[in-house]
Amino acid sequence: MAEQIAVADLGSNSFRLVVFTAADDWWKRTDEIYEAVRIGEGLAATGELGEAGMARAQATMEVFAHFCSASGIEPDAVLAVATSAIRDASNSAQFLERAQAASGLRVRVLSGEEEARYGFLAAVNSTTLSDGVMLDIGGGSMQLVHVVGRHSRELDSWRLGAVRMSERFLPGDGPAKPKQVRELVGYVTAKLERAPWLGRCGPRLVGIGGTIRNLAAAAQRDLEVPEAGVQGYVITRDELDRLVDELASRAPAERAKFPGIKPSRGDIILGGAIVVQTVMEVGGFEGIEVTEAGLREGVFFEHHLGGDPPLFEDVRHASVVNLAAQYGMDPEHSPHTAHVARLALGLFDELAAAAVHEGDAVERELLWAAALLHDIGMTVDYDDHHKHSRYLVLNAGLPGFEQRELALIGQAVRYHRKGTPSLGPFAPLAVKGDEERLNRMSACLRLAEDLERSRDQLVRAAHVAVEDGTVHLDLDSDGDDRVPRWAAGRETELFARAFDRQLTV
Amino acid sequence: MAEQIAVADLGSNSFRLVVFTAADDWWKRTDEIYEAVRIGEGLAATGELGEAGMARAQATMEVFAHFCSASGIEPDAVLAVATSAIRDASNSAQFLERAQAASGLRVRVLSGEEEARYGFLAAVNSTTLSDGVMLDIGGGSMQLVHVVGRHSRELDSWRLGAVRMSERFLPGDGPAKPKQVRELVGYVTAKLERAPWLGRCGPRLVGIGGTIRNLAAAAQRDLEVPEAGVQGYVITRDELDRLVDELASRAPAERAKFPGIKPSRGDIILGGAIVVQTVMEVGGFEGIEVTEAGLREGVFFEHHLGGDPPLFEDVRHASVVNLAAQYGMDPEHSPHTAHVARLALGLFDELAAAAVHEGDAVERELLWAAALLHDIGMTVDYDDHHKHSRYLVLNAGLPGFEQRELALIGQAVRYHRKGTPSLGPFAPLAVKGDEERLNRMSACLRLAEDLERSRDQLVRAAHVAVEDGTVHLDLDSDGDDRVPRWAAGRETELFARAFDRQLTV
Repeated sequence: MAEQIAVADLGSNSFRLVVFTAADDWWKRTDEIYEAVRIGEGLAATGELGEAGMARAQATMEVFAHFCSASGIEPDAVLAVATSAIRDASNSAQFLERAQAASGLRVRVLSGEEEARYGFLAAVNSTTLSDGVMLDIGGGSMQLVHVVGRHSRELDSWRLGAVRMSERFLPGDGPAKPKQVRELVGYVTAKLERAPWLGRCGPRLVGIGGTIRNLAAAAQRDLEVPEAGVQGYVITRDELDRLVDELASRAPAERAKFPGIKPSRGDIILGGAIVVQTVMEVGGFEGIEVTEAGLREGVFFEHHLGGDPPLFEDVRHASVVNLAAQYGMDPEHSPHTAHVARLALGLFDELAAAAVHEGDAVERELLWAAALLHDIGMTVDYDDHHKHSRYLVLNAGLPGFEQRELALIGQAVRYHRKGTPSLGPFAPLAVKGDEERLNRMSACLRLAEDLERSRDQLVRAAHVAVEDGTVHLDLDSDGDDRVPRWAAGRETELFARAFDRQLTV
Repeated sequence: MAEQIAVADLGSNSFRLVVFTAADDWWKRTDEIYEAVRIGEGLAATGELGEAGMARAQATMEVFAHFCSASGIEPDAVLAVATSAIRDASNSAQFLERAQAASGLRVRVLSGEEEARYGFLAAVNSTTLSDGVMLDIGGGSMQLVHVVGRHSRELDSWRLGAVRMSERFLPGDGPAKPKQVRELVGYVTAKLERAPWLGRCGPRLVGIGGTIRNLAAAAQRDLEVPEAGVQGYVITRDELDRLVDELASRAPAERAKFPGIKPSRGDIILGGAIVVQTVMEVGGFEGIEVTEAGLREGVFFEHHLGGDPPLFEDVRHASVVNLAAQYGMDPEHSPHTAHVARLALGLFDELAAAAVHEGDAVERELLWAAALLHDIGMTVDYDDHHKHSRYLVLNAGLPGFEQRELALIGQAVRYHRKGTPSLGPFAPLAVKGDEERLNRMSACLRLAEDLERSRDQLVRAAHVAVEDGTVHLDLDSDGDDRVPRWAAGRETELFARAFDRQLTV
């Protein structure tokens, strides 16, 4: 039975309610409402929340409460947290009392360190970050966490949010002045002295928050690949430097029109980008890897996973099984999927053992992922379900995989029935050897699918024997295997492309 | 609880097993296997099924049986039917006895009239055909049914299938000779004399079968719109004449490379196209409307719907509710969807009553469809779910709607949250007024979604009052409606585009 958990995130700029649905074997974000409440309006000048902002905030909390009760979410399954603006304002206690009474929502005001911890939980559960730094930048504050062996060693929070820095250092309607930028960089650098560990962390930096997602989207525009979100994209130091220069040379109204930047972020993107750039400079990072998860996912993971810290054992494995299970195609529910994966990996391993290819472990994992996901598109329509499977894989995403790996999985899924495998529109993401990698993955997956045509595990296993440069497949079957034999026999051309060998079945 | 029904279609060229899954409130095709068995090979020369073809056929039937048992489909939920080749061969009784014993499948050999009836059931349940003709052309035979008031008045079958005619009249590897084409046309024309009613039917002609789907795909290539299948596409007489001329001027090997024509159809597409062309000539039809449903759907509909004839009461209504229900978004399961539809239609109707627009009935129906389908994309991912909803609508299709109407529904769904509505890539399908139609649909749908933000039917209804050219929305609410009021208030620009009026809420 699926359970619904709502996380209400009462931020300095916007309030957001996210609903997660979690069943025994999968979870996903299933609903969301958003209001640009701007409760922090005027806070910098007075130290207090203003009356207009509090009224909007209260009305929004009432909507959230209505929304949850209409969606059948019990009050104790609503986890409401407040961050920077409400944490810092002198009058937030009165506001919260009033708003909680009106909405029935009980709000937990997070300390800077708690906020940092949720960002950390989001990062280690949505990427393969094991040693390095998590950076989370919001409107009001910026958090850094030093991660060692998937645990948090240092957690800290600074009032260096994108709105705060933009308002303070980059006022005005024109391009940014070099002096303004220098002052902001100097300010951030000085604040970061509190984190002497920053320069001594591993090479990986994972970034969270709207500023980083927007910068990644802007950097991605140059790469002409089909959009599939920014999860796993790495913004290099050079790309970020170029973006900062370009944004600084424009007026805020023009920054709002920059491809990839959301119009509502025009006035705060530069301030945020410079904070990120300065962290990279101080910490000596070459790139920042984007994850779409954040505070809200961190709160959800804590609830969903338990443990201390609450961690998926293997993020990549969990992502693939989670997506397959959403469509009932995980090994536990689909004997066909389980068997195709078994046959495909069996072929892969035996071909490697026979020195037909190298048997790279990452390639094997990508093949496994493609095997688990090859049929999920049947939910859209039977016709072209290979294409629909690719669409679902690319659009849902697989946290923990690089975009290049996601594309390889997507293309292997796309070619699991027919066609000549190619990287197609994803070629710009490829590294050397990817074309060949895709050919090998496709050949193993398609042979496995052919052998499992009757979906009854008739062919228990296929064994490889190499003789005079020809690969012979020997089928271990549970009955008449004429049809799978014939079906697999049609893959000789694909097999020769992939392994440069003749195939006989 | 969902039930699985398998239809095994043992055709002259190929055997196909299709699995339909039917729950209380939806049905869909969920699986399929296909073998190019060619059991009709050699039939024309000897009048008998050949030994090699029968062996392939038997092995395939065994695979079908394995497949069904592995998929948990009971033997009595497997409906196996055979058509032209098996119907006509002198030795099919012996073959069927042997093959049925080996596979456990009980095969019903359809008479020509029964085959015609299943094509008719497919056509009237997947299009809005009420009066006119259904044409179904396969490899061996061609069926015509005269439809009056959604009932079959005349049903007939001819041995004019695409393979049969191509083998007999268009042999050889070169372009077709004008004399060959003339002889084929003459032969078909003479045979059609048996159907004197053909010239006296309504103007609509609905076509079924791979020949017609391929011709539609070829005709569609010229239209540069995103692919969304051929359902609902109308091949005009002029387009067909052009295609026949082009195909006739090429050798079969070149026909196989014609965009839209499947490579395996290169040798039979021209024969089939000329049969269709001749039927259109004799019957005086200006175009042929394609449906992707066929014999197999006809068999399924008979089982699923019951009644005589088994008919959906309203095909368009059934298509929309069926697709919404597949994603749990039909009015019965989603109070939010039901209420958005109610609010959107309420606005549409009150604006029409106030003479702000014409209140066209078809436009209202498209708006209703978009309202029911606006959230189905949440199954893919919450982010960009408006785009995912469009993807699912276009790829699953909505039988009964024209492609142009499907595009309007898809674009209204796409713009139900944000953005400036436009026909985008579907502009080539549009007729005069569609841009305005989409604007009105989007404005009503988006206002309804804004008013239903809290998903708890807080705003029971919105009433329209027009004063001095300004439209005032008066909300009938069940509590504090500040947020929906504010949300709806943001749509003034869209509203002005759609209705050329100011909006106040």
